[in-house]
Amino acid sequence: MTRGKIAELIKLNTIFQAPMAGVTTPELVSEVSNQGGIGNIGAGYLNAKQTQNFIEKVKMNTNYFYGINLFVPEKSDLNEVEFDQAKQKFKQAAPAYAQEIPEKIEISHVFAEQIEVVMKEAVPIVSFTFGIPDVTVIEQLKQAGSYIIGTATTVKEAIEIENAGCDAVVVQGFEAGGHRGSFLGDNDLIGLFSLLPQVADSVKIPIIAAGGIMDKRGVKAAYNLGASSVQLGTAFLMTYESSADKLHKKTLLSSVETDAVLTKAFSGKLARGINNEFIEKYKHEREKILPYPFQNSLTKNMRSLAKQQNDKSFMSLWTGQSIRLSKEQSVRDLMNELKK
Amino acid sequence: MTRGKIAELIKLNTIFQAPMAGVTTPELVSEVSNQGGIGNIGAGYLNAKQTQNFIEKVKMNTNYFYGINLFVPEKSDLNEVEFDQAKQKFKQAAPAYAQEIPEKIEISHVFAEQIEVVMKEAVPIVSFTFGIPDVTVIEQLKQAGSYIIGTATTVKEAIEIENAGCDAVVVQGFEAGGHRGSFLGDNDLIGLFSLLPQVADSVKIPIIAAGGIMDKRGVKAAYNLGASSVQLGTAFLMTYESSADKLHKKTLLSSVETDAVLTKAFSGKLARGINNEFIEKYKHEREKILPYPFQNSLTKNMRSLAKQQNDKSFMSLWTGQSIRLSKEQSVRDLMNELKK
Repeated sequence: MTRGKIAELIKLNTIFQAPMAGVTTPELVSEVSNQGGIGNIGAGYLNAKQTQNFIEKVKMNTNYFYGINLFVPEKSDLNEVEFDQAKQKFKQAAPAYAQEIPEKIEISHVFAEQIEVVMKEAVPIVSFTFGIPDVTVIEQLKQAGSYIIGTATTVKEAIEIENAGCDAVVVQGFEAGGHRGSFLGDNDLIGLFSLLPQVADSVKIPIIAAGGIMDKRGVKAAYNLGASSVQLGTAFLMTYESSADKLHKKTLLSSVETDAVLTKAFSGKLARGINNEFIEKYKHEREKILPYPFQNSLTKNMRSLAKQQNDKSFMSLWTGQSIRLSKEQSVRDLMNELKK
Repeated sequence: MTRGKIAELIKLNTIFQAPMAGVTTPELVSEVSNQGGIGNIGAGYLNAKQTQNFIEKVKMNTNYFYGINLFVPEKSDLNEVEFDQAKQKFKQAAPAYAQEIPEKIEISHVFAEQIEVVMKEAVPIVSFTFGIPDVTVIEQLKQAGSYIIGTATTVKEAIEIENAGCDAVVVQGFEAGGHRGSFLGDNDLIGLFSLLPQVADSVKIPIIAAGGIMDKRGVKAAYNLGASSVQLGTAFLMTYESSADKLHKKTLLSSVETDAVLTKAFSGKLARGINNEFIEKYKHEREKILPYPFQNSLTKNMRSLAKQQNDKSFMSLWTGQSIRLSKEQSVRDLMNELKK
């Protein structure tokens, strides 16, 4: 029942708020849904309890459909030699934050617990980034009534997502801010303008276009190119309801499209944000960046302390390439502009 | 008079055939214009006499507006040490073509002569790549009746083009095939989806969108993002009327969007084409690539011999990112599809 209704909505040009982990708040997610879009919880960095609390708060504030996004875990190992080398490099890159290196990097395996919470709470839409979960997980969620969305950055990834039984696919262009959802290698950078029609010709499931869309012009263009719905990140990051740092928002308001770069320095995965000192320090020593999620754990304390200290040289200032279109506004005003 | 009519055409969604140097033929250019678009001569590699002959042949075959594209020359020097190092690297990268290294690299300065020919022939549209010519050149051409177009890959470049007195600007996205027209540094890679609306908000002159547009979907999307007209390269490269090598066309028909990469290996300037052995050999030794036009001269004989020998590992197989949309057809059929 729910699945069928969501399928209809997605065919009919619905606005998705991108599930930006660390930036979404229950207020943001519920307000987007209340304004006729689909709000999405960025649960990538939450544990099971936090995931549950977040869902409960969203449910209290909206009766409309909303979604949750989970990071699909990867198998990866860290050896002591690599960790030591990465710590040395970090000290050189961010000497003022040398005290913030964690003694041990422990990776919590929360994915299975998150799936349990999501099923118990019957979340209407469940999207995945960094991969495709096991078919059994997808089937369980579908049987529990959830609508399932994968994230692709190439045609091949979109086809795999369709073949795995996902109901729709977020197609993320080169322009997108924050983490790229790639899972079949991260060398392939395809602009949204080229990617959308090629995916549209290759899969039957509906496409949700993401990357560089900030206003009505982008929304219309995405539909022209074969998308059924659109997903906006930076535009929602800039709203009053997001928890993006004030300095982050202020920086975007005074930046231009060429200020954003792709880097693995913060997390070990390719992501787009405003270039700064920390990113520059790793530019010629990319081999000293640990794979995700280890680099993410390594830089975690630095990122939160830098934010407290308003030190934007060491903050992750995620943004897509349409930076000049940024403006601070309410979710209601943004949604009204997009729906025009 | 001519300038005013062309200005009207560009505002009214006209299809430009990209001036692909080495690929355009008089038949291609004139047929595009005869079919309601604007054909463009890619004169970047022609001398004054060849430029004149090409224009004469186009004029014989069409009474409609057409254009010519010139490369704006840059001041650059080559020292013996760099040249020797580049020759060594070339021998290692393309041992089968070691005999094809020119003894001396001589750069012909044809730009001023080309401008004279263009003025004498009263070419209706003159576009520039790799920079903006002196204001005096622009003014002379405008007084002679030509409509002037610059090429930009960032907002800043578009603003400089407008300020220099150009009548319109080609806005070239990250997705584009062949050479990037950048002239204020080549590190800035902006997807067309993000670039178009940001340029549209920053300049008053009309925008001609380029990069990844292959069919009606892309044409409509470009107009929604703020373009007045569009320019297609790969789609016209694939027509029967282009002189692109058969193997080049065949390769595109069996390639996918992730097969194209940006490289400086062939010319010294960043360009997008199908990845191959020659490009791979330079991947980790980019510092051994000579600046344009020296690298272009260094690899020239190799490229033409490789083409003769059907050796696609050493050919420059330029293409944009929308490779899966390639099809061989006549200019007439392509234009009819685009005008639908």
